[in-house]
Amino acid sequence: MVFADISMSVDGYVAGPNDGPANGLGDGGERLHDWMFATSGWRELHGIEGGTADQDSEIAAEMFANTGAIVMGRRMFTTGEGPWGDEPPFRMPVFVVTHTPREPVSKRGGTTFTFITGGVRAAVSAAREAAGERDVLVAGGGSAISQCIGEGLVDELRIHMVPVLLGGGVRLFGGGVSGELATDRVVATPAATHMRFTGVRSPA
Amino acid sequence: MVFADISMSVDGYVAGPNDGPANGLGDGGERLHDWMFATSGWRELHGIEGGTADQDSEIAAEMFANTGAIVMGRRMFTTGEGPWGDEPPFRMPVFVVTHTPREPVSKRGGTTFTFITGGVRAAVSAAREAAGERDVLVAGGGSAISQCIGEGLVDELRIHMVPVLLGGGVRLFGGGVSGELATDRVVATPAATHMRFTGVRSPA
Repeated sequence: MVFADISMSVDGYVAGPNDGPANGLGDGGERLHDWMFATSGWRELHGIEGGTADQDSEIAAEMFANTGAIVMGRRMFTTGEGPWGDEPPFRMPVFVVTHTPREPVSKRGGTTFTFITGGVRAAVSAAREAAGERDVLVAGGGSAISQCIGEGLVDELRIHMVPVLLGGGVRLFGGGVSGELATDRVVATPAATHMRFTGVRSPA
Repeated sequence: MVFADISMSVDGYVAGPNDGPANGLGDGGERLHDWMFATSGWRELHGIEGGTADQDSEIAAEMFANTGAIVMGRRMFTTGEGPWGDEPPFRMPVFVVTHTPREPVSKRGGTTFTFITGGVRAAVSAAREAAGERDVLVAGGGSAISQCIGEGLVDELRIHMVPVLLGGGVRLFGGGVSGELATDRVVATPAATHMRFTGVRSPA
């Protein structure tokens, strides 16, 4: 199963204005992950103690619970590479969709970055192969997720809608991808409304 | 109390591509209102028999239950004027934000359209005056709602998120309006995820 999972503002942004290596998720963009960073589910995955054990925590833990490989866009990789450091939190194969060939990189803790220049379809295919029986997570950014949905590669879309208006930045959906979804589950907490959609495989 | 209420696709559109008098809510845009048209709550307000009596119906009924006046943008008015006919469904004063002065229009059933050329603030002010103890509904479109939020005129934002990707059209949030919200209530049905936010009065 291939699922996309991302945090989004009410106005549809997954990063704030001026994102990039020097400015992370952009102006105000880190706000989108507050719900996650606070949870014990997320902290445990990242080897950090403490955090809240609540519905947000359970949902944060679902992100990696049955995941065997990750696909991400070049922009997300470039932004994250520095902060993730020598022991990135993924601890599984990560396939980066890029136009620039690069040798694979192995990090401590089991994270490997493999650079795929053949587009999102090739990246998802490589990730499925690596994941075996486990799921593939398309982790972002907006462009990679939107492209994967547009190509009919995504079985499930999980959006964590954070009650904030960023007013600008990187949109999850820049337009051009259409189709019916089906609401599979919605869990609302004060920190975020966690929505899970299926039926994203057959865009119109 | 001033509230904004609108149906939006998962990709953030409140009308499809090519909207306008000749094409209503644009290509695929009517899909956004399917959840509402099916309900007895909405049908009763519009003098149509039948419909479903469920959570969607209760939420549709809330739209007008305590509403005393409506604010809408020129684009929504222009698109709706034809279809609404001689007896529009509002049955209360409606204030249209426009650049073009026009004499007020009174329709059967109690709907009056008054055209306000002084901007959204003037329109909301006139609507509050007309509504008295009752609430003011900012009914759309995206630009009018976004402007009202940007000016700090909205107490509550209600978004009915419909599980569809339109792929293009008119966005609710074109950017430029930022600030923290608070999630007040979320009701999820197969037809839509009904989200209510407060705290929209103090944009950053």
